[in-house]
Amino acid sequence: MNEPRLPRGFLAAGRNVGLKPSDNDLALFVSRRPAAAAALFTRNHFPGAPIVLGRERIRQGRLQGLVVNSACSNVATGEAGLEDAREMARLAAHELGAHGDVPEEMVLVGSTGVIGRRLPMDRIRTGIQGMGQDLGTDPWPAARAIMTTDTRPKVFSMQVGDAVVTAVGKGAGMIAPNMATMLVYLFTDAEMETPRLHEALQAASRASFGVLSVDTDTSTSDMVVALANGEAGEVDPEAFGAALHALCTRVAEEVARDGEGATKLVRVQVEGAADPSEARQVARSVVESPLIKTMAYGADPNVGRILMAVGKCVGCRIKPERVQASVQGVEVIRAGQSVEFDESRVRELLGGDPVEIRIDLDVGRGRGQALGCDLTAGYIEENAAYASS
Amino acid sequence: MNEPRLPRGFLAAGRNVGLKPSDNDLALFVSRRPAAAAALFTRNHFPGAPIVLGRERIRQGRLQGLVVNSACSNVATGEAGLEDAREMARLAAHELGAHGDVPEEMVLVGSTGVIGRRLPMDRIRTGIQGMGQDLGTDPWPAARAIMTTDTRPKVFSMQVGDAVVTAVGKGAGMIAPNMATMLVYLFTDAEMETPRLHEALQAASRASFGVLSVDTDTSTSDMVVALANGEAGEVDPEAFGAALHALCTRVAEEVARDGEGATKLVRVQVEGAADPSEARQVARSVVESPLIKTMAYGADPNVGRILMAVGKCVGCRIKPERVQASVQGVEVIRAGQSVEFDESRVRELLGGDPVEIRIDLDVGRGRGQALGCDLTAGYIEENAAYASS
Repeated sequence: MNEPRLPRGFLAAGRNVGLKPSDNDLALFVSRRPAAAAALFTRNHFPGAPIVLGRERIRQGRLQGLVVNSACSNVATGEAGLEDAREMARLAAHELGAHGDVPEEMVLVGSTGVIGRRLPMDRIRTGIQGMGQDLGTDPWPAARAIMTTDTRPKVFSMQVGDAVVTAVGKGAGMIAPNMATMLVYLFTDAEMETPRLHEALQAASRASFGVLSVDTDTSTSDMVVALANGEAGEVDPEAFGAALHALCTRVAEEVARDGEGATKLVRVQVEGAADPSEARQVARSVVESPLIKTMAYGADPNVGRILMAVGKCVGCRIKPERVQASVQGVEVIRAGQSVEFDESRVRELLGGDPVEIRIDLDVGRGRGQALGCDLTAGYIEENAAYASS
Repeated sequence: MNEPRLPRGFLAAGRNVGLKPSDNDLALFVSRRPAAAAALFTRNHFPGAPIVLGRERIRQGRLQGLVVNSACSNVATGEAGLEDAREMARLAAHELGAHGDVPEEMVLVGSTGVIGRRLPMDRIRTGIQGMGQDLGTDPWPAARAIMTTDTRPKVFSMQVGDAVVTAVGKGAGMIAPNMATMLVYLFTDAEMETPRLHEALQAASRASFGVLSVDTDTSTSDMVVALANGEAGEVDPEAFGAALHALCTRVAEEVARDGEGATKLVRVQVEGAADPSEARQVARSVVESPLIKTMAYGADPNVGRILMAVGKCVGCRIKPERVQASVQGVEVIRAGQSVEFDESRVRELLGGDPVEIRIDLDVGRGRGQALGCDLTAGYIEENAAYASS
């Protein structure tokens, strides 16, 4: 990873327009020239208005601007909500116009926050005025503006040949692997045809956001969007794919680590499964188990919980007597049974971040992993108190 | 429900044999005469030794005694663990012999507690001595002895004609609907052929324990066992089935309500689904969602979370614009959108126990429900600190 920065030809801005008390809550991103664009959206049956609009607009395969607000997700708001999303795009296009003509159809909208409320459009209309003047090369004000329960903004960059790929993401809760799973915007100055960009995005996303589960819940607002404006010319497609993969994995890990109330990343790697899909299923079962999550938090090596969480995958091909597992590199289960291990040492290792659990099912060659986080009292406080009003 | 008591011809005892610091940890149950018996066991791939033994012994269709310990589940202990379970049955048979000859094969074993440790057989061997003398008609000492993280013992009775059906159960965590889902022992003096008993048990269990999820985890030790000793003669089979159903539902509700750290029962009823299985799937998705569980705890009517949890059932036939939902009888979602409702009133109602969420998908005639509980800081404390040693 490099020093996080926007690739050539991209600008961003973030400010507070009164959706949150004082933190930034509205972000703009623009590419100087129209960019090849690909996007993946949540599979939740109740997609927010920005998702409905985004699915429509991504079909053209090109985009130039993004406008994203936090605090209100514009979900379950019907026709009126869709009209609000369209107006947001129009308002943003007007501001972005300071940097050349940007048609409103070339602007994608994202919203994240409370479900089931109309956007306070009056505040957005007033607050967005003059934001075009704020646009600059610093990604952080925009990255902060898209945060909800995140404790820190997430921006990462990688170099690919002469090009840069940068991810700006947010996500801390309502995250489970049914695609996309949060807001992630990827910008690159590499030249990339839309179909190729889409393919690379899909592959990178499947292996990163697709194995991420903070809380088993699936947001109604998730999207991963990639924009390639070509200013740095062509790059090696394999290197680009690898960079995108590394970047998405990094964002996914950071989202898990910054999960609501979380203190650490939990990574579960499964090998020897009958096939990759069963490997992922077992990994997810372990990473999502509240008893594993609280074990990671409490740093107590109660390894029977690993057997329980593997064993509850009723449909998977598992031979109990073949199962091996390690925690933080220390073997704790062999032939389906607990083995003697240095408990105080494992307890100490479990205090670290990340917690790594490796499981070998020894029935095939399937491999897969899952990313998650620990479960703490902070999660409860945050979500029992998260004001709907 | 009647005053809880054991049916005619059943006796029970409970005492501390040193597996827990001072609370009862060993229970005996006996029927004066061999009883028709049926049982359902966990589907976890790592069944405990008592489950392995139980599956073998239930084939004979008749049982006379039960011995159950808490604190250690005798799971992942291999051949040695199986031998321990057999010895427990033998020791129990010896004690039960005070009330007529009880062959060890007629004794079923249950164990619940930490996974992956051998039973402290020396303590059981010493502690069980003389327990036959303690056997009496009071079910409570035995009910207390099978508790782990439960905060209260669970015994319920119902009258069916001249017969009584009584449930003694335990369960608070590691509970999700893949059969059985805890330890529940049902005793009746009704006369009942084994196949009929099994059928009634299966039907009652499917509709009660089968829709119960405290934490999405599936225990390695779960069993539901029914013993019918016939001392009260025949009863109307339909009335018996109804009683068993009511009793199992009551136990399931009490287990949810007494879930680890829980302060209340959450019941989700879904109607209008494409079929009953999708109704149950949606109900379970809602009841298991940590965002719904924390909402129930925080009594905050953040109803967008209901849409999210319904919407994440990707495989189900859902038409967003038809979905209706109510919380505590107050309509909160109509045509897939939030409706205006009296928030302070719903907040007040959500403070109660149980929390009732009803959802109408309006695409078919499928109905189903799910039982669960709220998620609190108490759950985290309990499970982050639950000593494996």
